[in-house]
Amino acid sequence: MKYSFKNDYSEGVHPRILEALSSSNLEQQDGYCDDKYSLEAKVHIRKKIQNSNAEVFFLSGGTQANLIVIASMLRPFESVIAATTGHICIHETGAIEATGHKVNTIYSNNGKLEASDIQRVVDEHKNEPPHMVQPRLVYISNSTEIGTIYQKHELEALSAVCKANNLYLYMDGARLGSALTAATNDISLPELSALLDAFYIGGTKNGGLIGEAIVINNPVFIADFPYHLKQRGALLGKGRIFGIQFREFFKDSLYFELADHANKMAQKLTDGIKEAGYSFLTDSPTNQIFPIFPIQIIEELGKNYEFYVWKKLDDNSSAIRLVTSWATNEEAVDGFIGDLSLCL
Amino acid sequence: MKYSFKNDYSEGVHPRILEALSSSNLEQQDGYCDDKYSLEAKVHIRKKIQNSNAEVFFLSGGTQANLIVIASMLRPFESVIAATTGHICIHETGAIEATGHKVNTIYSNNGKLEASDIQRVVDEHKNEPPHMVQPRLVYISNSTEIGTIYQKHELEALSAVCKANNLYLYMDGARLGSALTAATNDISLPELSALLDAFYIGGTKNGGLIGEAIVINNPVFIADFPYHLKQRGALLGKGRIFGIQFREFFKDSLYFELADHANKMAQKLTDGIKEAGYSFLTDSPTNQIFPIFPIQIIEELGKNYEFYVWKKLDDNSSAIRLVTSWATNEEAVDGFIGDLSLCL
Amino acid sequence: MKYSFKNDYSEGVHPRILEALSSSNLEQQDGYCDDKYSLEAKVHIRKKIQNSNAEVFFLSGGTQANLIVIASMLRPFESVIAATTGHICIHETGAIEATGHKVNTIYSNNGKLEASDIQRVVDEHKNEPPHMVQPRLVYISNSTEIGTIYQKHELEALSAVCKANNLYLYMDGARLGSALTAATNDISLPELSALLDAFYIGGTKNGGLIGEAIVINNPVFIADFPYHLKQRGALLGKGRIFGIQFREFFKDSLYFELADHANKMAQKLTDGIKEAGYSFLTDSPTNQIFPIFPIQIIEELGKNYEFYVWKKLDDNSSAIRLVTSWATNEEAVDGFIGDLSLCL
Amino acid sequence: MKYSFKNDYSEGVHPRILEALSSSNLEQQDGYCDDKYSLEAKVHIRKKIQNSNAEVFFLSGGTQANLIVIASMLRPFESVIAATTGHICIHETGAIEATGHKVNTIYSNNGKLEASDIQRVVDEHKNEPPHMVQPRLVYISNSTEIGTIYQKHELEALSAVCKANNLYLYMDGARLGSALTAATNDISLPELSALLDAFYIGGTKNGGLIGEAIVINNPVFIADFPYHLKQRGALLGKGRIFGIQFREFFKDSLYFELADHANKMAQKLTDGIKEAGYSFLTDSPTNQIFPIFPIQIIEELGKNYEFYVWKKLDDNSSAIRLVTSWATNEEAVDGFIGDLSLCL
Repeated sequence: MKYSFKNDYSEGVHPRILEALSSSNLEQQDGYCDDKYSLEAKVHIRKKIQNSNAEVFFLSGGTQANLIVIASMLRPFESVIAATTGHICIHETGAIEATGHKVNTIYSNNGKLEASDIQRVVDEHKNEPPHMVQPRLVYISNSTEIGTIYQKHELEALSAVCKANNLYLYMDGARLGSALTAATNDISLPELSALLDAFYIGGTKNGGLIGEAIVINNPVFIADFPYHLKQRGALLGKGRIFGIQFREFFKDSLYFELADHANKMAQKLTDGIKEAGYSFLTDSPTNQIFPIFPIQIIEELGKNYEFYVWKKLDDNSSAIRLVTSWATNEEAVDGFIGDLSLCL
Repeated sequence: MKYSFKNDYSEGVHPRILEALSSSNLEQQDGYCDDKYSLEAKVHIRKKIQNSNAEVFFLSGGTQANLIVIASMLRPFESVIAATTGHICIHETGAIEATGHKVNTIYSNNGKLEASDIQRVVDEHKNEPPHMVQPRLVYISNSTEIGTIYQKHELEALSAVCKANNLYLYMDGARLGSALTAATNDISLPELSALLDAFYIGGTKNGGLIGEAIVINNPVFIADFPYHLKQRGALLGKGRIFGIQFREFFKDSLYFELADHANKMAQKLTDGIKEAGYSFLTDSPTNQIFPIFPIQIIEELGKNYEFYVWKKLDDNSSAIRLVTSWATNEEAVDGFIGDLSLCL
Repeated sequence: MKYSFKNDYSEGVHPRILEALSSSNLEQQDGYCDDKYSLEAKVHIRKKIQNSNAEVFFLSGGTQANLIVIASMLRPFESVIAATTGHICIHETGAIEATGHKVNTIYSNNGKLEASDIQRVVDEHKNEPPHMVQPRLVYISNSTEIGTIYQKHELEALSAVCKANNLYLYMDGARLGSALTAATNDISLPELSALLDAFYIGGTKNGGLIGEAIVINNPVFIADFPYHLKQRGALLGKGRIFGIQFREFFKDSLYFELADHANKMAQKLTDGIKEAGYSFLTDSPTNQIFPIFPIQIIEELGKNYEFYVWKKLDDNSSAIRLVTSWATNEEAVDGFIGDLSLCL
Repeated sequence: MKYSFKNDYSEGVHPRILEALSSSNLEQQDGYCDDKYSLEAKVHIRKKIQNSNAEVFFLSGGTQANLIVIASMLRPFESVIAATTGHICIHETGAIEATGHKVNTIYSNNGKLEASDIQRVVDEHKNEPPHMVQPRLVYISNSTEIGTIYQKHELEALSAVCKANNLYLYMDGARLGSALTAATNDISLPELSALLDAFYIGGTKNGGLIGEAIVINNPVFIADFPYHLKQRGALLGKGRIFGIQFREFFKDSLYFELADHANKMAQKLTDGIKEAGYSFLTDSPTNQIFPIFPIQIIEELGKNYEFYVWKKLDDNSSAIRLVTSWATNEEAVDGFIGDLSLCL
């Protein structure tokens, strides 16, 4: 059996959640996230983000979260700005466009958007009304699709440019835990939340079984949001399953402990790979890393480990993606580094 | 604490599924329903329906299943025919229309469609091309939203009228288990499946934790279906959760045993209520029943039981909806009947 | 050559408009309805409706007008209420649903909606949020698709029920001229306009070449409307063609004179048909009438005249539709009545 | 009064068309392009393109033509490939995305697509099914939005790469006349048409009053196309107006004569501007040219002429856009060149 570094959702669910599912199993609870676990989970999340006016909604997946939040905030002729590397631009099969909205892309080589780029795109679209879409929402992800994270001043700059231009700022937090527990992170969850109109907190990729938690800070969008959820098929009868998970995650600090473990395992891999003399495609402090190896070494490692070959760099070398998770085995990490040293 | 007859998703999940989640928990499995449990579950379902060419897809909810299947089968100007009582017509917040398609409704007082009505609607829409939508798919549910079920000859007639008019036949099987185990049912699962282009097998309302299984028999729609799933946010990373459930359901006959229990509990309620001298809004052999009570009795019962008041009939009486499930307690059923007799 | 009573767009354009097109032809004018003719036409229309704050937009057809206005006013989960006879329900190939919105239909046998029906539909949709669409706009047509018109008190009642329920009121005025010049009409254009959030004034069916004028009274929807027009392909470069037509229509009273002629011709037909002893499907004071004839007489008349057989009533008789227009020849009307008398 | 070089739709309609409108005006004709003029126009167009199996549809504008053709050919998860300069990418307010489809853009500095770029985009989207949209149609314009035209071998290469990859090839022919009559053009209309699944022939920008002619060569898409037209509001009652125009255009060679005049006037401007020592942003053989002038000269010319400042190049100079048309006055062209020489 190969050990998989392919993604952060290869294993099931953190044992504490399994236990919570089990102990609550035969209780009768209301449907559609009106159960006591969902209600408690929402209270915990509001406390963690320090915004008692926020509303929290649970649903089953990240693409669904992105498309529903974005479509709920835009009028038909409005568009969303995203980095070319953004998940919504590439890996969601045109889910945003399928809701009728254009994505204005900005080239990014580190997965992040800059305030000045946003200003430029907004300005360009003022040239010829009404012949051009009007950007109205900025989509960012943290950590990004290539493992990088935003620094506090970068997020403040994004928030400022959005406010100045009447844009909403939305964050895809599929790997938010990993971002906030990264060694180089300098922003707290409440500080981050305060800069955003909405974001989602990823559960699936951080030890959950299934489900994500959408947080809406902007009060304009709260009351009608359940209609959007239902219309897109995201309001689920047995909503308790989401509540039970997120209550475990946030009633203490489990969510961050799991992410911290994933980051530490990635860091250990990074250190070992660097020590062995290899470089990286991006400078990632989170649980996705992109080392560059010669083809033969990739083939050799592939005998014992599963991972994606991310990008061919030249005829002799490629970057691979290694992903760690809450469940990553330290022995496997040590094994990988050991095997790498044997390749030399 | 009141006992709830509000719906069939008040409790968690059947213990065997919980056990299967637990025992497989730390295994590394591929994502997106390529895990071994999903693959095995698909094999079991194909066997149960006796169609080795069918394809099976898992996703998290029924509204999502309906909107994705329907939208995937229609071209923009094509419409779906449904009964006025159909779930897609009333309780899905316009999910079908949100995909761009009109629903042509046919009035039904028993939740079912008849072949002659379908022929009439099709004929009417041939009058003025291209000024009218073209019906292309018929949506039925079994059991229906009001607890009734289709007999074999009715389904054969629907299938025949669909084939004769080049329409697809799709069945919402949120409560398919309940239909197939009803005392008055006269069609087998393979016979049923053979009449349908596609249908979904409900998990959430029959003892599952979350999830439904879409079966596509019509080969035209299989290859592209994953794209539709992904675009609508229904392709989930940790797909194993669906596979584990449906493998338990269908590796033997658990699915039907759970539905049978729900039906039996409903039948016991029905018998007791009839004995007490009350009548019903519909003649339901499944796990949703609609007894008619005087207002005062409804109030009295409401002290110990939760249920929906379904329809006001006159100033003094209403029909209520009682729903039983795989988890319904026989003591609670006995208690309800006892309490009802005390109301007299 | 048969004489056609099939519709009110069989002929070209009123000669005064042709002349205006001709005399302005080589002038250079700005595009997209910023030409001087469009600007003047807007001023004339604002005067005629006595609302200097209204905004007027021109586009090429009625289905387009309906779908753009309705889609621009609704959020994704909101729906439109219409009579079962409504043009948007039957003869627009699902154009409203194609923008993502459900149409809630109310059965009507005279083509009109009543305030009490609207209240009922609104109330029904408050039952189970967020599982049901939320009606937000009422669509009416005047004259209706079957020739009837609204009386002032009916429109006031509709407006009141809309205001009370936070609904927008929109009128399809494809044949507005015919409604306002009907003998039984008791409401003026300014009075009518004041009750409506938006409406369109039909040009094509009242002597224009091509084009309709959308009037938006509700200030909320004015600023963004050009974006909706452009996105749906309705903002046309050579907008002068619309301006020239509507300037001719409304710089004096040409629009109403043309409609009045059409109505008078229909009335003359009605009188003659009644005198000959026949009855009508609806009581129409406008330019569409629906006399009921025996099959043989319909066949006989069909030798010299073109018209639609509207509805089969029994094996021996059907209602036909006769439509008159600004261009209807009085001799043809006399001829029809004469021919009918010969059929006896 | 300034003379306008802002666009090619500043004037009305070619006098021959005005005459044809006038002479046919009081004839009764069938609606929805079933009139004799539309039928004749279709015959003429089929002859000109030498494809008797093609079908021709008329509608009022180019954005509408693009969105309807593209949406009619794609399934929900399929996308269209276009150059970054493409009209659908920038100047149609997200009309394509509003139909649910993503536009995959390819950077182009001359307005044209190359076969190798298309192959690359197709290959990239095969990487991760079903997480990525599937390109299925290629959108090109000829002449392009910046005045350039495709050579025959370039179009053959595009057609070949499309066929090899099961892509449809669609051409926006808003200025097709200008392309085909350009001095450097080397492809005939029948040769061009044979390479395309569909295209539209622009009327508005080449001397028409209003309207474009969509030609569909691919038989798969013909039968249902009227439904798409109607649903998007593009099927117009008084369709004769389109038929009359295109019959005049194509019953002889009027269409090409008008375009040829526009090109000649542009060429004369180009020659004069070059002689005066100025360069151009693009090398355009068609009726849109983009000379580069110092700011002061632009200001000076702006006193007598209307035009768009297209692109700022540095602090001292910009490219302007000059557009000529069927109606451009040779005296105005001479005047412009004369005024330019005085600026020196």
